[in-house]
Amino acid sequence: MRKTVVFLSDFGSSDGAVSAMHGVADQVSPDLKLEDLTHDIPQFNIWEASYRLAQTLPYWAAGTVFVCVVDPGVGSDRKSLVALTKDGHIVVTPDNGTLTHIERRIGLNEVRELHVESNRLAGSQKSHTFFGRDVYAYNGARLASGELAFSECGPILEEFVRLEVEEQRREGDMIVGAIDILDTRYGSLWTNINGDLLDEIGVTWGDYLQVRITKDNRIVYGYPLKLCKAFTDVPKGEALMYINSLLNIAVALNQGNFASTYSIGTGEGWKITFSKYNMP
Amino acid sequence: MRKTVVFLSDFGSSDGAVSAMHGVADQVSPDLKLEDLTHDIPQFNIWEASYRLAQTLPYWAAGTVFVCVVDPGVGSDRKSLVALTKDGHIVVTPDNGTLTHIERRIGLNEVRELHVESNRLAGSQKSHTFFGRDVYAYNGARLASGELAFSECGPILEEFVRLEVEEQRREGDMIVGAIDILDTRYGSLWTNINGDLLDEIGVTWGDYLQVRITKDNRIVYGYPLKLCKAFTDVPKGEALMYINSLLNIAVALNQGNFASTYSIGTGEGWKITFSKYNMP
Amino acid sequence: MRKTVVFLSDFGSSDGAVSAMHGVADQVSPDLKLEDLTHDIPQFNIWEASYRLAQTLPYWAAGTVFVCVVDPGVGSDRKSLVALTKDGHIVVTPDNGTLTHIERRIGLNEVRELHVESNRLAGSQKSHTFFGRDVYAYNGARLASGELAFSECGPILEEFVRLEVEEQRREGDMIVGAIDILDTRYGSLWTNINGDLLDEIGVTWGDYLQVRITKDNRIVYGYPLKLCKAFTDVPKGEALMYINSLLNIAVALNQGNFASTYSIGTGEGWKITFSKYNMP
Repeated sequence: MRKTVVFLSDFGSSDGAVSAMHGVADQVSPDLKLEDLTHDIPQFNIWEASYRLAQTLPYWAAGTVFVCVVDPGVGSDRKSLVALTKDGHIVVTPDNGTLTHIERRIGLNEVRELHVESNRLAGSQKSHTFFGRDVYAYNGARLASGELAFSECGPILEEFVRLEVEEQRREGDMIVGAIDILDTRYGSLWTNINGDLLDEIGVTWGDYLQVRITKDNRIVYGYPLKLCKAFTDVPKGEALMYINSLLNIAVALNQGNFASTYSIGTGEGWKITFSKYNMP
Repeated sequence: MRKTVVFLSDFGSSDGAVSAMHGVADQVSPDLKLEDLTHDIPQFNIWEASYRLAQTLPYWAAGTVFVCVVDPGVGSDRKSLVALTKDGHIVVTPDNGTLTHIERRIGLNEVRELHVESNRLAGSQKSHTFFGRDVYAYNGARLASGELAFSECGPILEEFVRLEVEEQRREGDMIVGAIDILDTRYGSLWTNINGDLLDEIGVTWGDYLQVRITKDNRIVYGYPLKLCKAFTDVPKGEALMYINSLLNIAVALNQGNFASTYSIGTGEGWKITFSKYNMP
Repeated sequence: MRKTVVFLSDFGSSDGAVSAMHGVADQVSPDLKLEDLTHDIPQFNIWEASYRLAQTLPYWAAGTVFVCVVDPGVGSDRKSLVALTKDGHIVVTPDNGTLTHIERRIGLNEVRELHVESNRLAGSQKSHTFFGRDVYAYNGARLASGELAFSECGPILEEFVRLEVEEQRREGDMIVGAIDILDTRYGSLWTNINGDLLDEIGVTWGDYLQVRITKDNRIVYGYPLKLCKAFTDVPKGEALMYINSLLNIAVALNQGNFASTYSIGTGEGWKITFSKYNMP
């Protein structure tokens, strides 16, 4: 193993929770390098945790162990997972969907159910267990240090929780997909739809598209927007479509925050569609 | 020593102050592991620093050195302390009360006064000393690296600053205690009163208790609240009592922030009492 | 080299950008110590990045490598620089002015233009390069690990971007300078003017000075303020002048935020002047 553990959670950084996880890992072995992906995932937002993991993991060396604790159900009867990715990274996480983006973009070699009772911090069987520290950080450190082998974590699982993803696709004259993530600073919507699909429905720079955003099939937003090369192609305060740095379709408000202005979220239940719009 | 230094302060993370402390420690020895507990302690809030230290320290290996710099009086004639806990951790801190919770919950083996003039970063005797960096980080690193022995820091102190704590206790039909900390995300009040005391005054789930909160004997809050198993046992926006993950009594607002709504704080001068309330 | 890399950016800490930089550096060599100065530089604020670098760098050991990525133009035709300071630190940064404060306060031995095409992360030549990760973090790590020698980075540059700084000076009865930085917590203005210049124009504690602040020669603030030893020398909510911990002239609002109240910024284009004011 690489002797590096990377932590990801929704704990924030103002109390001692993250440091307690680091401390437990350091006790397993002082030779570990302890790193943080972020602890500012919006609370209980499993989708965003899943996205951030898949976005960042490829830049770390094979053998790096990721400990991901974002879960409304930690401590419930939720299973605990240890996953080995196609690229050789290990992820320790509750079974709640955090492996979704990794499985789709990178691939998973094997997922095992962590046997918690035989793999937890000594003394942590008492009433107020903190799973992030006593189970996930502890076993992430044991895996990274070589004290625990992946194959010994527990039985192989075929079924584990996957978030529902609206696949990017063309449906006749319309293209359809999911809102993958919000650009943190500007609230732009980053879809999972590759810009190439715009060619397929005959749209080019400067054209208008009817944009419709639904949450659980309820319409939240529906207006025609211009496909722009630069934010400044529309006046300040107006919305636009553009192609982001991942070459996917994105929606933004010039000098504003699209997501907060229109109360748009990401993940399960959110769907976005685009179709060519002929200005009347 | 364990060669790990854990830093705690109220400096925030937007300027270079924390990095300067890390840099000074790294100069003492490149072999040190440099960790942060949090730097988001509310400014000058010694009580919260004391609480966070005691909360997190047990999860780090014996021999770990904690550098805690939260002090309105840093640089004044405040003494500087080096403490050895019963569990073998070392804390370097100004003499302002930050050892209070550790002493009460974990215990202290010995406290020494750090002789500052002979134990400060070379060149830092000039006018604008930054004690956190030039004294606390520097000596924390020397202790962790083995360059400075605990016994050589300075003379043993019997008297040092302790914050006043309202002890949890029963007074007739009433139970009394302190507000130890606010749950960072929801503003719930976490008292230092064990839930067992509720049994002693004959209270059970679903009962109402008269809650009174005072600051320096002035009443800040006084209403009857229901003792609930779940936040949802009261309507949205209503206050309730519950038992938190430390098995202590806590007070919250369902889907709201109790502390900010009623301007409640923690620490010295704050007192909370509960007595059985018979609904009229 | 010291095998330590210190990162500085305006990326914030809520997505995976900083962790991706750490991951790339860790892949170069697992022996590196990876540290963060801050990632909360206000977006695109090159001046503040320059100031924070010069403020913090002296506390790190010679041989430490700083990776500074704050740049509206990253990925444009901006050059990439590698600088060796007089004290033996190395800075990897875009050519946009971030070396300004280091050059003036510490001094630069040599600045080289990093040859990007031959010094970038393998596979990063594709369309959506992230320079902070693929060029700056990657080469910072190679320099720190000894894989890349400073002298092999590229040709020596004599000309590189320097921010314009309003030098501290006396002009007759007036003293003039720049607003170097805002005190993060209180919005006090920290000028680059040494307090000694007040003596030269015959001002002492308790005197009033006419303060004028201009941005690109437009007046933003102009009032007489008292030179105080303590904030409490003026009523709550009133402005004052004082001498800060660097022994420079500063301007503050007692229990308020001067910079946000009067919309004052730092860096290029901002000028502040003081002249003795005789109360009518």
